[in-house]
Amino acid sequence: MAFVMQKRIDAGLSRKTARPQGRVVVAPVCSAAVEAPPAPAAKPAQSYGVFRLSYDTQNEDPSLTRTWKKTIKVAVTGASGNIANHLLFMLASGEVYGKDQPIALQLLGSERSKEALEGVAMELEDSLYPLLREVSIGTDPYEIFGDADWALMIGAKPRGPGMERADLLQQNGEIFQVQGRALNESASRNCKVLVVGNPCNTNALIAMENAPNIPRKNFHALTRLDENRAKCQLALKSGKFYTSVSRMAIWGNHSTTQVPDYINARIGGVPATDLIRDMKYFREEFTPKVALRGGALIKKWGRSSAASTAVSVADAIRSLVVPTAPGDCFSTGVISDGNPYGVREGLIFSFPCRSKGDGDYEICDDFLVDEWLRAKIRASEDELQKEKECVSHLIGMMGGSCALRGAADTTVPGEN
Amino acid sequence: MAFVMQKRIDAGLSRKTARPQGRVVVAPVCSAAVEAPPAPAAKPAQSYGVFRLSYDTQNEDPSLTRTWKKTIKVAVTGASGNIANHLLFMLASGEVYGKDQPIALQLLGSERSKEALEGVAMELEDSLYPLLREVSIGTDPYEIFGDADWALMIGAKPRGPGMERADLLQQNGEIFQVQGRALNESASRNCKVLVVGNPCNTNALIAMENAPNIPRKNFHALTRLDENRAKCQLALKSGKFYTSVSRMAIWGNHSTTQVPDYINARIGGVPATDLIRDMKYFREEFTPKVALRGGALIKKWGRSSAASTAVSVADAIRSLVVPTAPGDCFSTGVISDGNPYGVREGLIFSFPCRSKGDGDYEICDDFLVDEWLRAKIRASEDELQKEKECVSHLIGMMGGSCALRGAADTTVPGEN
Repeated sequence: MAFVMQKRIDAGLSRKTARPQGRVVVAPVCSAAVEAPPAPAAKPAQSYGVFRLSYDTQNEDPSLTRTWKKTIKVAVTGASGNIANHLLFMLASGEVYGKDQPIALQLLGSERSKEALEGVAMELEDSLYPLLREVSIGTDPYEIFGDADWALMIGAKPRGPGMERADLLQQNGEIFQVQGRALNESASRNCKVLVVGNPCNTNALIAMENAPNIPRKNFHALTRLDENRAKCQLALKSGKFYTSVSRMAIWGNHSTTQVPDYINARIGGVPATDLIRDMKYFREEFTPKVALRGGALIKKWGRSSAASTAVSVADAIRSLVVPTAPGDCFSTGVISDGNPYGVREGLIFSFPCRSKGDGDYEICDDFLVDEWLRAKIRASEDELQKEKECVSHLIGMMGGSCALRGAADTTVPGEN
Repeated sequence: MAFVMQKRIDAGLSRKTARPQGRVVVAPVCSAAVEAPPAPAAKPAQSYGVFRLSYDTQNEDPSLTRTWKKTIKVAVTGASGNIANHLLFMLASGEVYGKDQPIALQLLGSERSKEALEGVAMELEDSLYPLLREVSIGTDPYEIFGDADWALMIGAKPRGPGMERADLLQQNGEIFQVQGRALNESASRNCKVLVVGNPCNTNALIAMENAPNIPRKNFHALTRLDENRAKCQLALKSGKFYTSVSRMAIWGNHSTTQVPDYINARIGGVPATDLIRDMKYFREEFTPKVALRGGALIKKWGRSSAASTAVSVADAIRSLVVPTAPGDCFSTGVISDGNPYGVREGLIFSFPCRSKGDGDYEICDDFLVDEWLRAKIRASEDELQKEKECVSHLIGMMGGSCALRGAADTTVPGEN
């Protein structure tokens, strides 16, 4: 059972020399604004405790590790928060990436949460997950995103008292600008990025526009929790178990303008609208129930729904690494460029998607969009366009004035 | 995809008529004290939300459910607390009982936590776990333990300011007396009981003595977190990965008198003492590091280690439902009756055990106990005997005076 010291620094250097050409950004760009400042000197993130010792799994216990894949690096921001506290243990258990997929966790926290990050790393040590081969912790995104195959961006500032959605966009937008630049500099050239921190669509847009070296397709905003909640509501209403609900698309923004699509949803293979013949329910109850579920939960629970959010993040990742069942879809917020539904380009917009399980996906092109759905989609699209204009200075876009000041608040309750 | 309403009430009645003869309690018993008061009228626990609809898995989607086992009922106390908030999602995912084992969760909370319990149930709904077929919530242990195949007893009162260990024993002992009676009345006759709430050894003893209809062997106190922590420390010291540490026994009480057994531990199949030739480390660093790990974590993390505790509960259950690897063991606090190491009978004491994976176990009889280990084991045994005397009135035992008043506090830090 030999062990070898890992050559993280060498690996980092060779990656940089092999870096592919940066992609050209399609959106109108003021290149001076999007250009990253000189990146801090690259240094590896600090490995923690027992994870300081790294192992060559090929030379280790062959009965355990022979069939294992190459270790993947998963960076997580907001790593000392409640959602991560659930998610990290799911990732380490092998439930998400597979039982043959060893994993290195790279955890980003703030200066204030440094000690808590150590606590998380200690609990991961004590949990003895065979697949968890490395844990690094740190406060510098350039370090923590180093060679990351996945970046799960959970960390975002919660809204302070009296703060408008426009203020939240601004404040968190700045975080995602910095982190986007760090991704661009440090992460794997094919890093998959999933943004959980809200407002997640526009945060994902900002990260994407600041990381031109990473394919635009690779950026996701989490709308899977909305999809899961919608499936549960249809199960409740129809009296069927939730596993029988399929093709449950969420369109648009992860806000109260989101569109849970009952028109294309199926229950036990049959259109939901054939089983539930109640248009008033769908239009007046179902949609707000899904959108306001987070707020209902906070009222019961006294805190936001960290566990089910983490479950939905795990689901969102699995949807990209396991092939989608024939005819089914999953919902994820992705770049609207070239979408088959006429949604304006340049937005991170939730669509029904399917995947071959290779980390990539395509937008499903066989969803029926009727008048009602079209109008709802348009409203969410308009909102996302307004959000984009509010953060134009963070994505190198000329002009743009923030029309959301004083506008109605569409933040999904319970999610700052 | 037919669904049938579940016949919980009928099932409950038929269970009662079929109830086997109560076992005779071995310990000296004042039967009046141990006799339960007339049990409240049996009524089924309240099923929650989407779980109100129950399904005959045999008639459901055969591709999914054909190979499934019969649903098991798992009761969890302290279900709205932090440990349960991690554990319930692990249980529902199939990671613990297996991917072919459908599960019904029966969640016990207090009056104060009723709303939070609903919040937990809502998050379980939204997580769409295929194996999770029922969730019931309630505040009456007689209801919640109904037909339970497993009872995971996490709930216990935390210690108030200035409260002694003796007071904690008393206060939580009363909870476990009530819950033991409820188990005796309501649970499956072969229910497996795992006590997590501290002081867990003596709480398990109290529950056991108040549930004479359930085999004494079925009661466990959680020392698996201590085992996991000990394995991690040996990995750190030896420079080997933690999965290579085996035969890591914890003896005695889940308190600072616990004995993490380095003498029998192996690393990569070799005695730990052959790899780490440092007796001073083992005796003066290793043991306190394991016992005081919870306190170190609280200092870093600002809260107790709920996630890794939940992981260790999952590990403890898996150890009973998956066969133990040849030559290996796991640690669990069980009744000392007939143990091969001369530990006094009638205590819940942590031993190295092995299992065929059928829910049962036996105490390993091939562990070397040298002079040093013997003395340490004796000290933990003495402490457990004193704890037992402090709760004699809760277990129907004559006499017994509490010698722990004013004694040094051996509570494991971070665990009230």
